[in-house]
Amino acid sequence: MEVTNRYVVVKTHVEAMPSLSDFELKSESLKLSVEPGSKDVIVRNLYVSIDPYQLNRMKSNSNSQRSGGFAIGIVLGKEIDAYGLAKVVVSDKEEFAEGDLVVGLISWGEYTKIGSEGILRKLDPMGFPLSYHVGVLGFSGLTAYAGLFEVCKLKPGEKVFVSAACGSVGNLVGQYAKLLGCYVVGSAGTKKKVDLLKEKLGFDDAFNYREEPDLKSTLQRYFPDGIDVYFDNVGAEMQEAAVDVMNRFGRVAVCGVISEYTNTERRAAPNMLDVIYKRIKIQGFLAADHVNILADFISTTAEYLRSGKMIPVEDISEGVESVPTAFMGLFRGDNMGKKIVKIGQE
Amino acid sequence: MEVTNRYVVVKTHVEAMPSLSDFELKSESLKLSVEPGSKDVIVRNLYVSIDPYQLNRMKSNSNSQRSGGFAIGIVLGKEIDAYGLAKVVVSDKEEFAEGDLVVGLISWGEYTKIGSEGILRKLDPMGFPLSYHVGVLGFSGLTAYAGLFEVCKLKPGEKVFVSAACGSVGNLVGQYAKLLGCYVVGSAGTKKKVDLLKEKLGFDDAFNYREEPDLKSTLQRYFPDGIDVYFDNVGAEMQEAAVDVMNRFGRVAVCGVISEYTNTERRAAPNMLDVIYKRIKIQGFLAADHVNILADFISTTAEYLRSGKMIPVEDISEGVESVPTAFMGLFRGDNMGKKIVKIGQE
Repeated sequence: MEVTNRYVVVKTHVEAMPSLSDFELKSESLKLSVEPGSKDVIVRNLYVSIDPYQLNRMKSNSNSQRSGGFAIGIVLGKEIDAYGLAKVVVSDKEEFAEGDLVVGLISWGEYTKIGSEGILRKLDPMGFPLSYHVGVLGFSGLTAYAGLFEVCKLKPGEKVFVSAACGSVGNLVGQYAKLLGCYVVGSAGTKKKVDLLKEKLGFDDAFNYREEPDLKSTLQRYFPDGIDVYFDNVGAEMQEAAVDVMNRFGRVAVCGVISEYTNTERRAAPNMLDVIYKRIKIQGFLAADHVNILADFISTTAEYLRSGKMIPVEDISEGVESVPTAFMGLFRGDNMGKKIVKIGQE
Repeated sequence: MEVTNRYVVVKTHVEAMPSLSDFELKSESLKLSVEPGSKDVIVRNLYVSIDPYQLNRMKSNSNSQRSGGFAIGIVLGKEIDAYGLAKVVVSDKEEFAEGDLVVGLISWGEYTKIGSEGILRKLDPMGFPLSYHVGVLGFSGLTAYAGLFEVCKLKPGEKVFVSAACGSVGNLVGQYAKLLGCYVVGSAGTKKKVDLLKEKLGFDDAFNYREEPDLKSTLQRYFPDGIDVYFDNVGAEMQEAAVDVMNRFGRVAVCGVISEYTNTERRAAPNMLDVIYKRIKIQGFLAADHVNILADFISTTAEYLRSGKMIPVEDISEGVESVPTAFMGLFRGDNMGKKIVKIGQE
């Protein structure tokens, strides 16, 4: 049996803000069969994750020294691998059978053929909506969890600041920190997001950074007792301000620097005198290094979700053709919570 | 009995490069007696340490939020406390008797009267020259040791870069790392220093940063396999270049940023994409937080010194009146190794 597989590619390297003309929707016929012995698996994609880090993979220098897993460059004109949830169509791997639900590296397309080296695991949906497994129970959740508990070793009562707090990871950072008994403030770019953080997600406070001309005094106002942990999703001036207002032995978990992704001239230049005298640690991390805590993360988070203590925030578009717009929206701050594209029906 | 005590003070806040006119040598008569019950101790100073961090204490904003021990501002016109070695003249504390040798916080002066809260401990010279206890067996040594082994958790075979490698701490960083079996390269500001590092201190290589127009390509040349640990004494562009050339899971121990001390406009702006994708940790530290390893540090270092495996590099001036010049020289790179002023004869 053959199907038409539509998938999104980039036509050109993207160095700054992505635009629609950088992308193309390709159509290709795909035979739904696998060679015996190939260990190939073909899946039909249901939900794919739309993440800012993909922009780094589109840059012309993405295959330079820094490539470390996620930063491996995307090949122009070829399928773009991305985290997502899919249904097995045909499998030469004995772990998977037709109809199995799986999560792992699929693609921004309707179908994905995954080779023997592919990263895929069988999914038990545990009664949750499938999209949860791409966001709150997927890599976004693991990123928030690992950054707070493994990188920063967050303790109850500490003061936590998170930027891009309405983003896929940021909103979960705030919710985990609140559940641990921390004081949490988030920054976001619209009033609607600020309201959501304060009124629905239980943040102690939140502010619209676009309305704050002096981020240092803003943070001093929201943190009269200083910041212990800063979960950095944006980089640049916000990181500098957070280091300025940080307490002794403070930790900065650098998860992403979205404001620097689209402008390579923007750089955080934290005051190293503060870093020294306040013994601050600034540490970059990838969730992929923390799969050892996956089981713990999933059981803890599933329990929070079941008891209603944690609220997933999802922003779902429909159809593979909406991937480029969904992706571009990340850099304009269009999304509320986890950006997902629903590619197909279960 | 009364003596004349001469000591150095700063007359004005020093925001950038210090100059001779910022200092004054005061003379005061001092009664060599202590009140019973006061717990006061009067010591005659023999050797005092001359350290760059004192400049941060001379700045007008030194008492701001970042004050964390060492950054407590110096009071204009008053004695300046500094690490050093002294002989007890008279003591109301039972731990100390006349004639005892002590190390701790004394002052840039000929005598120091130390109150009950003073930081002082009795010294066993262990057969070493007294000046060693101000440098290689004092806080400089502990700083190198704690930064490498506690902050960076250095492992044999790793590639280590140290800046200001001929400074009081840098030369010891390189020597400890070599003794652990690491590949070590240092940067310094003169040919004479570079020669010393390579020919006498056993560094694998060294370079004169003043002759290198592009620090990133310089470091790529000296570290074809990347840097695992960067011991940062200078900050600014050098830190940026080291992060560029760093390997995955690399560590930057920020000990000092001397190039930023005299110019608050200079800032390191390490590439956060590298920090994230290479999971780099940038951590500030103070040796004072690591007194728990003092005994281990002293016994290890004493053994290295006795066996000739470690070579102290000292740069000693004589007389309290030479303190300002010695201090100013730190920021011009005048000193080779540990800068000490010998104040008095044993």
